[in-house]
Amino acid sequence: MNTRIESDSIGSIKVPIEAYYGVQSLRAHNNFYITGKGMNPTLIISLAEIKKAAAITNNKAGFLTDNIAKAIITACDEIISGKLHDQFIVDPIQGGAGTSANMNANEVIANRAIELLGGNKGDYTIVHPNDHVNMAQSTNDVFPTAGKLSVLTLLPRAIAQLQRLYNALVVKSAEFDNIIKMGRTQLQDAVPIRLGQSFNAYASVVKRDIDRLNKAQKEMLTINIGATAIGTSINATPEYLSNITANLQTVTGKKIVQADDLIDATQNLDSFVSVSGILKTCAVNLSKISNDLRLLSSGPKTGLAEINLPAKQNGSSIMPGKINPVIPEVVSQVAFNIIGNDFTITMAAESGQLELNAFEPVLFYNLFESIETLENATRTFVDNCITGITANEERCKELLDQSVGTATALCPYIGYKKSAEIAKTALKTGKTVTTLVLEGGFLTETELQDILNPVAMTQIEAKIDKCAI
Amino acid sequence: MNTRIESDSIGSIKVPIEAYYGVQSLRAHNNFYITGKGMNPTLIISLAEIKKAAAITNNKAGFLTDNIAKAIITACDEIISGKLHDQFIVDPIQGGAGTSANMNANEVIANRAIELLGGNKGDYTIVHPNDHVNMAQSTNDVFPTAGKLSVLTLLPRAIAQLQRLYNALVVKSAEFDNIIKMGRTQLQDAVPIRLGQSFNAYASVVKRDIDRLNKAQKEMLTINIGATAIGTSINATPEYLSNITANLQTVTGKKIVQADDLIDATQNLDSFVSVSGILKTCAVNLSKISNDLRLLSSGPKTGLAEINLPAKQNGSSIMPGKINPVIPEVVSQVAFNIIGNDFTITMAAESGQLELNAFEPVLFYNLFESIETLENATRTFVDNCITGITANEERCKELLDQSVGTATALCPYIGYKKSAEIAKTALKTGKTVTTLVLEGGFLTETELQDILNPVAMTQIEAKIDKCAI
Amino acid sequence: MNTRIESDSIGSIKVPIEAYYGVQSLRAHNNFYITGKGMNPTLIISLAEIKKAAAITNNKAGFLTDNIAKAIITACDEIISGKLHDQFIVDPIQGGAGTSANMNANEVIANRAIELLGGNKGDYTIVHPNDHVNMAQSTNDVFPTAGKLSVLTLLPRAIAQLQRLYNALVVKSAEFDNIIKMGRTQLQDAVPIRLGQSFNAYASVVKRDIDRLNKAQKEMLTINIGATAIGTSINATPEYLSNITANLQTVTGKKIVQADDLIDATQNLDSFVSVSGILKTCAVNLSKISNDLRLLSSGPKTGLAEINLPAKQNGSSIMPGKINPVIPEVVSQVAFNIIGNDFTITMAAESGQLELNAFEPVLFYNLFESIETLENATRTFVDNCITGITANEERCKELLDQSVGTATALCPYIGYKKSAEIAKTALKTGKTVTTLVLEGGFLTETELQDILNPVAMTQIEAKIDKCAI
Amino acid sequence: MNTRIESDSIGSIKVPIEAYYGVQSLRAHNNFYITGKGMNPTLIISLAEIKKAAAITNNKAGFLTDNIAKAIITACDEIISGKLHDQFIVDPIQGGAGTSANMNANEVIANRAIELLGGNKGDYTIVHPNDHVNMAQSTNDVFPTAGKLSVLTLLPRAIAQLQRLYNALVVKSAEFDNIIKMGRTQLQDAVPIRLGQSFNAYASVVKRDIDRLNKAQKEMLTINIGATAIGTSINATPEYLSNITANLQTVTGKKIVQADDLIDATQNLDSFVSVSGILKTCAVNLSKISNDLRLLSSGPKTGLAEINLPAKQNGSSIMPGKINPVIPEVVSQVAFNIIGNDFTITMAAESGQLELNAFEPVLFYNLFESIETLENATRTFVDNCITGITANEERCKELLDQSVGTATALCPYIGYKKSAEIAKTALKTGKTVTTLVLEGGFLTETELQDILNPVAMTQIEAKIDKCAI
Repeated sequence: MNTRIESDSIGSIKVPIEAYYGVQSLRAHNNFYITGKGMNPTLIISLAEIKKAAAITNNKAGFLTDNIAKAIITACDEIISGKLHDQFIVDPIQGGAGTSANMNANEVIANRAIELLGGNKGDYTIVHPNDHVNMAQSTNDVFPTAGKLSVLTLLPRAIAQLQRLYNALVVKSAEFDNIIKMGRTQLQDAVPIRLGQSFNAYASVVKRDIDRLNKAQKEMLTINIGATAIGTSINATPEYLSNITANLQTVTGKKIVQADDLIDATQNLDSFVSVSGILKTCAVNLSKISNDLRLLSSGPKTGLAEINLPAKQNGSSIMPGKINPVIPEVVSQVAFNIIGNDFTITMAAESGQLELNAFEPVLFYNLFESIETLENATRTFVDNCITGITANEERCKELLDQSVGTATALCPYIGYKKSAEIAKTALKTGKTVTTLVLEGGFLTETELQDILNPVAMTQIEAKIDKCAI
Repeated sequence: MNTRIESDSIGSIKVPIEAYYGVQSLRAHNNFYITGKGMNPTLIISLAEIKKAAAITNNKAGFLTDNIAKAIITACDEIISGKLHDQFIVDPIQGGAGTSANMNANEVIANRAIELLGGNKGDYTIVHPNDHVNMAQSTNDVFPTAGKLSVLTLLPRAIAQLQRLYNALVVKSAEFDNIIKMGRTQLQDAVPIRLGQSFNAYASVVKRDIDRLNKAQKEMLTINIGATAIGTSINATPEYLSNITANLQTVTGKKIVQADDLIDATQNLDSFVSVSGILKTCAVNLSKISNDLRLLSSGPKTGLAEINLPAKQNGSSIMPGKINPVIPEVVSQVAFNIIGNDFTITMAAESGQLELNAFEPVLFYNLFESIETLENATRTFVDNCITGITANEERCKELLDQSVGTATALCPYIGYKKSAEIAKTALKTGKTVTTLVLEGGFLTETELQDILNPVAMTQIEAKIDKCAI
Repeated sequence: MNTRIESDSIGSIKVPIEAYYGVQSLRAHNNFYITGKGMNPTLIISLAEIKKAAAITNNKAGFLTDNIAKAIITACDEIISGKLHDQFIVDPIQGGAGTSANMNANEVIANRAIELLGGNKGDYTIVHPNDHVNMAQSTNDVFPTAGKLSVLTLLPRAIAQLQRLYNALVVKSAEFDNIIKMGRTQLQDAVPIRLGQSFNAYASVVKRDIDRLNKAQKEMLTINIGATAIGTSINATPEYLSNITANLQTVTGKKIVQADDLIDATQNLDSFVSVSGILKTCAVNLSKISNDLRLLSSGPKTGLAEINLPAKQNGSSIMPGKINPVIPEVVSQVAFNIIGNDFTITMAAESGQLELNAFEPVLFYNLFESIETLENATRTFVDNCITGITANEERCKELLDQSVGTATALCPYIGYKKSAEIAKTALKTGKTVTTLVLEGGFLTETELQDILNPVAMTQIEAKIDKCAI
Repeated sequence: MNTRIESDSIGSIKVPIEAYYGVQSLRAHNNFYITGKGMNPTLIISLAEIKKAAAITNNKAGFLTDNIAKAIITACDEIISGKLHDQFIVDPIQGGAGTSANMNANEVIANRAIELLGGNKGDYTIVHPNDHVNMAQSTNDVFPTAGKLSVLTLLPRAIAQLQRLYNALVVKSAEFDNIIKMGRTQLQDAVPIRLGQSFNAYASVVKRDIDRLNKAQKEMLTINIGATAIGTSINATPEYLSNITANLQTVTGKKIVQADDLIDATQNLDSFVSVSGILKTCAVNLSKISNDLRLLSSGPKTGLAEINLPAKQNGSSIMPGKINPVIPEVVSQVAFNIIGNDFTITMAAESGQLELNAFEPVLFYNLFESIETLENATRTFVDNCITGITANEERCKELLDQSVGTATALCPYIGYKKSAEIAKTALKTGKTVTTLVLEGGFLTETELQDILNPVAMTQIEAKIDKCAI
């Protein structure tokens, strides 16, 4: 391998001659072999966007020559378009508050800019990673800003899938609106419900998640670029500080704003915790829906079997013909993972000290995974499960007819105690609730027909209409 | 002990003759000896408020006689005023989705109402716990509604303490605005900051927590009273359903609204998870501030010692004269507890099945503890710590003068590499940065005076003013 | 209220004249109003045991007069027997690494000893809380030691209940050994199993939990008493250091040993984390069993209904005759709480710094709750659920007969693919697997009888016997 | 792309003609695009080892011809040697309890075996993925067994690094044994300690972690291979059941044993939870040590600065010459991640239902990451941090001399109260403790020399020796 020599305060090391990364990236690569995985592409792009906006700003302020600025901007554009990502060699879990990721970006951009200007990679007299690419910046404003930009890129994708899920649930809700079945509380027979109502409830809760995520996302719009090392904006010129956010807005197309208190914005990661907490809440809901679908589709012969999930793959390597609820299962697993990630994020945020939180890398690693797997899990949930669900109407009716939960409707007429006795007797003797009420002479047949009408039991609105008449 | 006999579907048991609770409370008491603690008083009051509003509504709708309604309302008012709380004998962690807590309320209110009407406790022909007190209700709408009402009572108290904390931090921020000190990132000397800026950052993050909690609190306003068993409002009359929320609003003074989708609102606990997630975020911030205060006040001789926390108690049973940062320590501990509680809450919410989540009791137990301990910890934080903090101005200056972090300010003028060499040499030789720059002839003394002015380093605004001139 | 004046380094305050606690307890009480609850009685007793052992040791070493030692020992014995617990007024969540709890013990014991010696409470010239009661001790060895002693008291009680649970499950396993039913994987019909085998599996996993807890408990035997402030045993005499552990063994009857590395043992709380992790593992298993019982007893008409849980209380305030699985529900809730507590414990342990972990109080608060609620939940699980479970043999058989999962047994004879087709056709047409195999001419009736015998399918041993013949 | 057609119960799809995977893998690949990552190589190897052992066993039992068995074994050996791993295309987070991973292995092995036997990939009449490769197996015994084998491969690597860490700490402990410094509790000056003692304490706690992991590892030795679908060993022949474990032992070189209760072993994942809990405990300890190192090396000028961590990379992109504690920082981040993973693992295990836990994939995904990142983080901790730590002896002495914590040693001689006054006065006036004691005439100079000897304060043994004389 041909190499070039690069050096820093620590000493000199050999860098592969064709590498765009440099000495600092390589040291970090060696120090942090942790997950063995690469940096998130969205984070890489966010870093390049920041570097581009900084170059534009510094150039306008007269601190960066047109030549150098242009070369840096071109290099950034290449990275934004997906090139050079293999030159980002530092592990996503790294010490140093993201300095290595930032320096990796600085070095790759500098070397590509040097190349564009006709120089040899490593000749930092032409374009310097720190003095030019990182001009007026610090890892401590670049890295958290990149994290927020990344969330602002990733989260709308997840929300879009949740919106698709909402739509699919609404469709199913309408489709199943006439299917009446037994409702269950604590897994015990309760009172009638329409299957469409169940799916509508799923839609309602997903809607709430979308609203929450949309609101939480706004926390990501407040960024600390310009804060530099600790929020005092040291080494940032007034011109830069005044214009960097607007320029970054232009570069990214995101409605970001500068934090009022840059010191606070540099040392605190609570906004990420808040977003993760909302993701966790969403995960809870998706897992609950998944569990319900698994329960309702349990069977085919020894379970509830009120609905069928679409068969997406063979369920067993040993049990022929078995179809399993694999999509709800993967959704719940993703939920568990998001919940675990939330805890890591929480600990990382809690561990900040004084002017900086050094634990952003592990926070981002987990947060990005949470958002991306939420997006992916929701997509497969919609496409490979929800849209293909069918109802077993007959089975629903059969179970409903067997149950005695309708006795609940008797309470307002004959009281809780008598109703309880009837329910108990019905279960013991197998006689229907109607028979027992008539036998006991508690109510007439006409009264009963009204009271024990299961469809009416599912909609108080129907009663309201009646009253209105 | 004199007893009376009460019976239900399960059979008959002896109840102490003077007890206001009845058979169902007593069974639950025996089934659920778990924490050995009593129900939260705020939850008891919330239950009574709901029972009162229901009695008013049912009376107006013509289903409850004036006599019975009046007796029930009086009983509820007594409980709301703090009486009869010792009659709530079920453990806060209980099976059954809160049925036992609800029945405990029904029985206590029924028996007190019976007594008010001149009857003997246990004579449920006069006022029946289910048929009269629980009329048109189910545990499944009463209990979650009571939970939300309780949060709406407790959370503002915690927010009020956070507001006091914010105010106290703002005061300190002003008080310390002229004290310049070294900022630290990753616990290593960074660049100058003013102590007032640090406290302002604490104020900023607390402000954000207050905003979040205020927003999250709104989630609690949507209640499911009227949903009855599973959200289909079975056994609720149209009149009741139309008026119960308004009446509960009047009784509680809280701007609650009826959920659009009562089925969703009955089976999902995500709103509580969302609130808990925001509490957790706040806990993260309070613990971070506490950790900072412990670091900054470390010493008195072998630590940073830049600030002094007020001495609130002897620090050690063996080390005389030792004063410890006990208040920040307790704040962090409360934060850890809130974070752990959040996980329990998350698991409880995830475990809901079909038309109900049976795990509300443990969720409420944890959520109420989180809010109440947050309130208490914040109060002592303000009163016994923040307001008494003093600064060691001389020590701050001494440390700042020793450090070489000011070399950062040289970068824009002589470049990162040369600045790094100067910083390194300064540390090794003990010479000051100024001396080394002058010795090297890199900048003139006048230039240096401007560049290395630590106060200027802490405020880019100062520079802006200069530029404007 | 009559008061006496007590003073310390901070100043003077009024203490109720009859109080056994003193100035330091009172300050702590005022500083730490957090949970509003009292200290755990077991912890109070453990503290008294340590103070007693120390007095014995110091007396033998000649540093404590017989008079004072005797008075201290008597005071300790009173506390151990349950007296004076109301004098422990500091909140379980407190700052200061337990100093307040330790000083509360020192003061109560000192004042009671003073009283026994004929003096007036508060006259510490007779017996001094620090110099006499706390002699040769520090909070930093007393408090962690007390925590371990408490776990050693509490944990065996929980284990005893788990042992009862194990026994009850074994009994049920035998009782249900002949009941054949359908096994389910992923809630889908799988292959036959005997109900007794299911309960045996529950017994097996509980057995493993008991083993783990017994092993984990041993971690609690290594204590740091004698370490004093930071593990260097400062202010402990060699005689004391050599004898305190043995004396504490005698006082407590627990086979405790002195840590080899007292510095490590003073600053690290990992042993508690380890115990909590095992408790959490147990919680996972109990919750899984509880969930299974809720599934198997779901119904009565629209669920699996293979078993019946004993009816322990009315299930609903609105639905008459409803019986809910309240005991398994409370067990799961306790499990969730233990899991959340484990997180708090983990964070507390992680936050230790240098020579001490100041966050023991919140750790103990959570750990004790985990153990005690595990004990209580397991007790009610045994007494109010497991022992009363009955099986619905007919229902089990009915479901088994309907299912096609037995097709799995065909694979070795006719291959996976053909078996899958048969299973699919059986489900679609309603024909039995046997019919379809015979119609297809794949196997003879005699072969089928052997292959599709569901009992044989549940025990490979049966086959082994056959083979042996 | 050239393709072949493969079909299963669901229908037919096109598979790339050169692919070794088949229809079931491809369906799973499409259903589960979640993390976008590949399966863990160790898990792939473990699956191949099981398939190999099964082929050997089935062949010996006469159910698999020599030809087919030999081809399967060769295919397995290739995978074990690292080949064909790119053919494992299912996401590590997948629904279906690992069926897709198992079928991916079955298909790759079948197709490679077909190829070895001269057939065309996809011609399953030659070697069938289910009937031959999966013979006598089910995902439900294969997948958990593979998980345990993988842990048994990965965990010793992590333990080996912990052992290296222990050794490195012991070396440092000896190196620093003569450096006396101030101990700190709650970040406040306490009493003297030797730096070597601090490092010895770190070694002690790591030792305990190693012991725990070694013990926990044993839980992984009990496997359920032979259990097939639900633990009843359906479709496993007695011969297979008797020999598979021994053969798997031979293939893997691991001392695995068959579970006594295969039903329990198939449905419960508590052993993994237990191992993860111990990993979490270890993470807590490593993070605590890391935090200490960051505190002790804080500075260089405004921190404690008692030790120096080796400079491994530039610390800042803006602050020249800054060196940060990047290795301890990455260790803490890995610890946070392991702790979060533990939660996901806990939830996954808790969610098992009846005869199976379907959530193993996400459990394994997290558990493997925990172990592998622990190994990697520990390696860099040793190599890039611990071994290069140096002490600032002078600084340690300077801080010690300034402090008044030595006043603690006066307590046994002049009492706690007087000692406290002296400490307070010393701090206020700047006079030394010695001066004040002499001025007060409390002790003679000779006495003081003995009492206030800081080295003696760090070792009660020294005193013991003196006493012995």
